[in-house]
Amino acid sequence: MSPMRRDAEGTRRRILDVATIEFARHGIAGARVDRIAAAAGSNKAMIYAYYDSKDRLFDAVFDAVVVRNVNDVPIDADDLPEYAARLCEQYERYPEVVRLATWDRLERGGAGARTAVVVEASAHKVAEVVRVQAAGLVRPDLPAATLLGLIYAVAQGPSDSVDADRATGSTGRRDVVKDAVARLIRP
Amino acid sequence: MSPMRRDAEGTRRRILDVATIEFARHGIAGARVDRIAAAAGSNKAMIYAYYDSKDRLFDAVFDAVVVRNVNDVPIDADDLPEYAARLCEQYERYPEVVRLATWDRLERGGAGARTAVVVEASAHKVAEVVRVQAAGLVRPDLPAATLLGLIYAVAQGPSDSVDADRATGSTGRRDVVKDAVARLIRP
Repeated sequence: MSPMRRDAEGTRRRILDVATIEFARHGIAGARVDRIAAAAGSNKAMIYAYYDSKDRLFDAVFDAVVVRNVNDVPIDADDLPEYAARLCEQYERYPEVVRLATWDRLERGGAGARTAVVVEASAHKVAEVVRVQAAGLVRPDLPAATLLGLIYAVAQGPSDSVDADRATGSTGRRDVVKDAVARLIRP
Repeated sequence: MSPMRRDAEGTRRRILDVATIEFARHGIAGARVDRIAAAAGSNKAMIYAYYDSKDRLFDAVFDAVVVRNVNDVPIDADDLPEYAARLCEQYERYPEVVRLATWDRLERGGAGARTAVVVEASAHKVAEVVRVQAAGLVRPDLPAATLLGLIYAVAQGPSDSVDADRATGSTGRRDVVKDAVARLIRP
């Protein structure tokens, strides 16, 4: 790779890292491209040249976060309770995953969840759950996507007024989530 | 009540209704007080006179939504699965409940969940769950607030990339939630 090419990749990477923090903190409408440019040592023109628009930049951020999540915590359909417990730890380590998904849903009705990368990641997870359902390891009476939805809901926790996290603490949360998912998937 | 007093109450009520829509749609930072004023046939000065600041106006909106939620769907600790199913229907009827709670968590770390009205509502729910735990109807091995957190998480659904709602449809969701909570609370 030429040094110039390497520089360009470095710049793109830096923009993405900075944009991840900005979007996670302020959401899509609230994020400021000039703030991202300044923090990345770049400028608005270059960001738009690379990413076209603030919305496409958000998609790129969201895709990158999903890829990291899938790499760090690949689905383990043969042990969904442990998978959920690992997800819960991952969400604690990288709270921006849930924040970005939540902003996406609040501000765009979940458009980010329809990019090719995310759709493919979801399809793989669903296929894995279908497999263990067919094998009789997991209850077959719910669509695989619905089961996964329950698992993510439990791993992420509620956005309601009763704060479960404060009652249990983060060490306890792993066990609560693992036990909950074991109950939810039992045939 | 004097006609002038009645007018004032009507104005406050109208501001609150309009602000609920504005905050649910745009969040706290994104909400525009001048847009609320225009839609309520009022003005910014009056809104600040009544509610002091945009943050306090949000608190008033959030409190009102929690009060309606608690009145429409009071906790029924003796039948938590049916309570969760009703909550799920209520969230579908009034999506702003979850949206407001979510904005509050994203933008202010859940500050709205600490107003007196909301704290009192939460304390009542926790006390009810403690009661049925002591009676042996519900598993006693988790703090009541943690159990409630699981119930809300399931009733609200996930903010992740796998869309459970599309797989199940809204008529099916009630049954999925009811069954899930029955599994989660079993002693």
